[in-house]
Amino acid sequence: MPYIAVEAHLPGITGLLEYRKDSAEPIRDLTQFLLRGPNTLTEGERELIATIVSHNNECRFCSAAHTAATDLLFGESNTAACVKADIETAPVSEKMKALLTIAKQVQQSGKAVTTQAIERARNAGATDVEIHDTVLIAALFCLYNRYVDGLATVTPADSDFYKGLADRIVHHGYTRLPQGYDHLKK
Amino acid sequence: MPYIAVEAHLPGITGLLEYRKDSAEPIRDLTQFLLRGPNTLTEGERELIATIVSHNNECRFCSAAHTAATDLLFGESNTAACVKADIETAPVSEKMKALLTIAKQVQQSGKAVTTQAIERARNAGATDVEIHDTVLIAALFCLYNRYVDGLATVTPADSDFYKGLADRIVHHGYTRLPQGYDHLKK
Repeated sequence: MPYIAVEAHLPGITGLLEYRKDSAEPIRDLTQFLLRGPNTLTEGERELIATIVSHNNECRFCSAAHTAATDLLFGESNTAACVKADIETAPVSEKMKALLTIAKQVQQSGKAVTTQAIERARNAGATDVEIHDTVLIAALFCLYNRYVDGLATVTPADSDFYKGLADRIVHHGYTRLPQGYDHLKK
Repeated sequence: MPYIAVEAHLPGITGLLEYRKDSAEPIRDLTQFLLRGPNTLTEGERELIATIVSHNNECRFCSAAHTAATDLLFGESNTAACVKADIETAPVSEKMKALLTIAKQVQQSGKAVTTQAIERARNAGATDVEIHDTVLIAALFCLYNRYVDGLATVTPADSDFYKGLADRIVHHGYTRLPQGYDHLKK
């Protein structure tokens, strides 16, 4: 049971974003910009960063939601599963391996990011902005994972819930849905 | 030396917020709302939450900046120093001890927040919103600390720098300063 009185039909982050709309707005905007804004990293690659961080923070809600979003964007479920199991042998580019390694280091601590990991990313063609965004997306999901689990929100067991949520964030993004789209609120 | 090309005269978070203004805007808005918006917790109490999290994440820049802001708001430097050394014996209310304990748990992991810590806060008079805001402020500083250290930004050694920064965030808040106030940019 959640530690605070969120709406019972809104599990995980969804109830928290409705609970305090004033803080939700900039969180939604930041996520929309980083995960859906113009970027040389694809939306799928950015969701993969969200996934690896949530997975390593053992946040079941966020990990399931962003795995489902990654799967939908990639059109298959193999890549996210392999990245969660082992970045080095996963079917992603050398640049993505390097950026996902940086994200995993950020998950542990800002101080855990090594010059070697940064150099590897740079040698694989990563730009300053890509390195910046990787660190900030990883840091943002350290916020999300703590927010969701720190208030003991509900984690649905049904995988269809996360497919519905993935459909919403892939097709409508992270910003608040306009009125009249309440049936898409998941 | 920072991992990305931020402006050399802007250490810590200040260079990052200038580096990517699009992502800086919602981060500034979220911080302004949580740390300076209408709240039953004082600005000093909220800065204390930022301080304990930054201190425990060993983020020297953020810890020094928010310690200085707390000191300025409290009008003395004893409280922040005592909280960082030991929450239980610090000269703060029972409610603040409970909330700071929750913040410290969030710093470790969302899953580390215990029902006992929440009950203690509630027994000491903390409201749902206060518990919510404590968790979200703590989660936000887990983002900041990772952002600042994950990109290896510069940490000034001079305590006057943090006093200047504290003066800016206490008297002008976290939002972008309007044009013509560049001399206050610290």
